[in-house]
Amino acid sequence: MKTTHIEHIAIAVKDLEDSIKYYEDVLGLKCYAIEEVADQKVKTAFFQVGQTKIELLEATSPDSTVAKFIEKRGQGIHHLAFAVEGIESALAEVKDKGVRLLDEKPRRGAEGLDIAFLHPKSTQGVLTEFCENRQNQ
Amino acid sequence: MKTTHIEHIAIAVKDLEDSIKYYEDVLGLKCYAIEEVADQKVKTAFFQVGQTKIELLEATSPDSTVAKFIEKRGQGIHHLAFAVEGIESALAEVKDKGVRLLDEKPRRGAEGLDIAFLHPKSTQGVLTEFCENRQNQ
Repeated sequence: MKTTHIEHIAIAVKDLEDSIKYYEDVLGLKCYAIEEVADQKVKTAFFQVGQTKIELLEATSPDSTVAKFIEKRGQGIHHLAFAVEGIESALAEVKDKGVRLLDEKPRRGAEGLDIAFLHPKSTQGVLTEFCENRQNQ
Repeated sequence: MKTTHIEHIAIAVKDLEDSIKYYEDVLGLKCYAIEEVADQKVKTAFFQVGQTKIELLEATSPDSTVAKFIEKRGQGIHHLAFAVEGIESALAEVKDKGVRLLDEKPRRGAEGLDIAFLHPKSTQGVLTEFCENRQNQ
């Protein structure tokens, strides 16, 4: 499996507007896009920090996994996404090694990426995402 | 404040050896260093993923903050570290904007970096670290 970099770090927040202010005004980052991902019931805000994005997630529905996460643990880091080359074969490889997949096949995520999640129970407690950008291929 | 990249993502684990196996054998990353940081009561293992490191943390004492974190929440992402230029002025700037500092002055962290932590209650629930590498300056 080829992992090139950390694609993004996703952070669950209660109020997207409020959190964007913190990341811009306090940490000096710049929000370059806001996108709603209906499929995941979240509104997201993106910040580029070197090679990696910070992706803030606000739930758009009380039954969103992000809403449940915040209810249980409060605001905080929600998941970690690796940029991989060949997402299908990466998924097959980790499945073969005992990882439980939340997505057997890649689906379309924010920013047009192909994405798939691995279950945190089989990834040392870290909700893990694989991403591949095939838009320019 | 100038933030250049995500220096590392720290993950609290119960058993460092076991977790290194997962990151190497399943995710295909390579552990390039193991270091004990007595000050923080942790043993750490490092993996480079593009610009960013994954830093696994195993508590070396039951009163380590990592042991308490795992007791409360289980294994998972522990903190997020930004590489900044001019760590003292970055700390002064965020303090001035209302952030509560866990370290008023930088101290020596793993890999010889100058580091300081910000309190998660004032950083949207994310235990945040600033790092600067001044070893070659």
